[in-house]
Amino acid sequence: MSYKLFIPGPVAVSDKTYAAMTTPVVGHRSPDFVELYNAVQPGLQKLFYTKDPVYISTSSAWGVMEGALRNLCRKKVLNCMSGAFSDKWNDVSKRCAKDAGALKYDWGTPLDPEDIRKELSTGEYDVITFIHNETSTGTMNPIEEIMAVVREFPEVISVVDTVSSFSVLPIKKDELGIDVMLTGSQKALALPPGLSLISVSQRALDRAKELPDRGYYFDFHEFQKNHEKGMTPSTPVIPLINGLRSKLGDIEAEGVENRYARHHELNELVRGWVRQHGFQLLPPEEFGSRSLCCVRNDRDIDLPALNKTLKERYQCVIDGGYGKIKGQTFRISNMGDETKETISALLDQLTEILGEMGKL
Amino acid sequence: MSYKLFIPGPVAVSDKTYAAMTTPVVGHRSPDFVELYNAVQPGLQKLFYTKDPVYISTSSAWGVMEGALRNLCRKKVLNCMSGAFSDKWNDVSKRCAKDAGALKYDWGTPLDPEDIRKELSTGEYDVITFIHNETSTGTMNPIEEIMAVVREFPEVISVVDTVSSFSVLPIKKDELGIDVMLTGSQKALALPPGLSLISVSQRALDRAKELPDRGYYFDFHEFQKNHEKGMTPSTPVIPLINGLRSKLGDIEAEGVENRYARHHELNELVRGWVRQHGFQLLPPEEFGSRSLCCVRNDRDIDLPALNKTLKERYQCVIDGGYGKIKGQTFRISNMGDETKETISALLDQLTEILGEMGKL
Repeated sequence: MSYKLFIPGPVAVSDKTYAAMTTPVVGHRSPDFVELYNAVQPGLQKLFYTKDPVYISTSSAWGVMEGALRNLCRKKVLNCMSGAFSDKWNDVSKRCAKDAGALKYDWGTPLDPEDIRKELSTGEYDVITFIHNETSTGTMNPIEEIMAVVREFPEVISVVDTVSSFSVLPIKKDELGIDVMLTGSQKALALPPGLSLISVSQRALDRAKELPDRGYYFDFHEFQKNHEKGMTPSTPVIPLINGLRSKLGDIEAEGVENRYARHHELNELVRGWVRQHGFQLLPPEEFGSRSLCCVRNDRDIDLPALNKTLKERYQCVIDGGYGKIKGQTFRISNMGDETKETISALLDQLTEILGEMGKL
Repeated sequence: MSYKLFIPGPVAVSDKTYAAMTTPVVGHRSPDFVELYNAVQPGLQKLFYTKDPVYISTSSAWGVMEGALRNLCRKKVLNCMSGAFSDKWNDVSKRCAKDAGALKYDWGTPLDPEDIRKELSTGEYDVITFIHNETSTGTMNPIEEIMAVVREFPEVISVVDTVSSFSVLPIKKDELGIDVMLTGSQKALALPPGLSLISVSQRALDRAKELPDRGYYFDFHEFQKNHEKGMTPSTPVIPLINGLRSKLGDIEAEGVENRYARHHELNELVRGWVRQHGFQLLPPEEFGSRSLCCVRNDRDIDLPALNKTLKERYQCVIDGGYGKIKGQTFRISNMGDETKETISALLDQLTEILGEMGKL
């Protein structure tokens, strides 16, 4: 049975995107591939707000998140941790045998730029990682304030995960001084998983030259060398790049500002429903994500049962919480191609089923 | 313009496979994904001739080729080198800061098991890498004889790239004592690129435990831990796994022995054409690949011009040589879903065009 995903990634993929993915594969060293690679660059650079290239990695975002550490950290990395994915980044740092500092917060608490300043002031660090939008907790960190602090430390290279905020709202890489900004395909771009995008500053490329063991598959200089030829270091996941080209066309047609406004409006719609029914977001309202709502399950709702009914009756699913807050929260995504109609319909369905369950 | 690939990967993908790839994406932590993951295991284990799990990596084969080094090499790796890809593996070893020995041959020369015995007898090595079928030179190495030698050295973990021989002929992982066997999606499996498959022995898993810096994305133990739950460590390229499921069904329907026989027959058809027109394979006949023919261009054929005509007149392309033998060789793939009819048609087209070019 086919059903629609309102989980915070992967999200629903349009028929148009699937059709684009069936474009016959070409040789990845052929002029036809170069044409495809170069065709997606301007749209990507626009969404990254950068003059730097945007490399295409055949991997999930974790590949380039690990790769960034191997490319950049000679001394010590500061991992800002406030959810499942940012916590894990610290673990991954250690698994790459990097000296890794942990700036820890409770899940759902936004990062505090002053804490970051204090840590970086120790002079111990040459890399910082943080996640703009913690998908596990639906928390959006104050990226402008954080980057203002990071820019005070010229030795520190910044690696920012925008996996679930990219293309939801503007994230101005060059203006903010982000060195490495990365995202994945299966969130707001509404592509299937399997492709990640990463844009790397000259500063970060220079740093990478100092790392003798950065490997090959995620090596920034291999990406750059091949980028200059309109290619990728290894055989890329061509169907998803065809999907990406199609999606960038959709975004251009919609208008990127309209797209941001739509995501904001849909997010407000969900937040309104949350308030109306006396629920609460996990994070403080002003730090709530614009990609999804992570809602506290303070009524002992049987989330698997809710999802079962939703799936059987309406052929769609939401998310029942991630990691250590599974069951204690539920998450509703408003990423991708959703509309006022589709989100309103979902909210009505939730109201109906939660009502039947005696939870409203 | 759409055209058919007779290059040695990516190869032509069937409409049925493309259709399977448009199966709606499911959540990668959902029971529906577990069902998909578990559904492909038996077919994969059969093709790998193994009782070990077959992990699914969202990457090209280079990802797991690099990952294997990071998982396994504590002391020194012996890279057997005889073509573009096996040469590069040595370079990749060094980029992972591994001590790497180079057993070098001229391109097109098969590996000599006696040389391998001599090298391994030094006691310096704890890992060996070799490529079963060097795609760049169309050379198939004597895997049985090589593995007989490798088995004499219990400390040495074997990593065998079967990227362009997998499913072309039987490669019996367990029987040969191969520790790590890997392949990619875009060769004889006739899927698009973006997915690699890797099967790892208990011996290799035990070794990996000794490596503190093996990272996360390609960590064998992460693959194993998630495999036990019917999942992958990171968000996987689900459309290609749906394609893989469909293709394993095709292979089951054809019968794997029939599939091997078909690849052999088609390869013989191309070799017959090569002989008939007085061409020569690059490697010695008995070490010629069964996946493709790499033919010496000893007549100064303008290969780009040949391919241009082939593409315009017949909507297909062959390959004009790879790396340092580009232009000096051409390659014709018989991998994937090709038939006597499609290969014969291609050979007739080549005869016609080469005749017009005055090269026959």
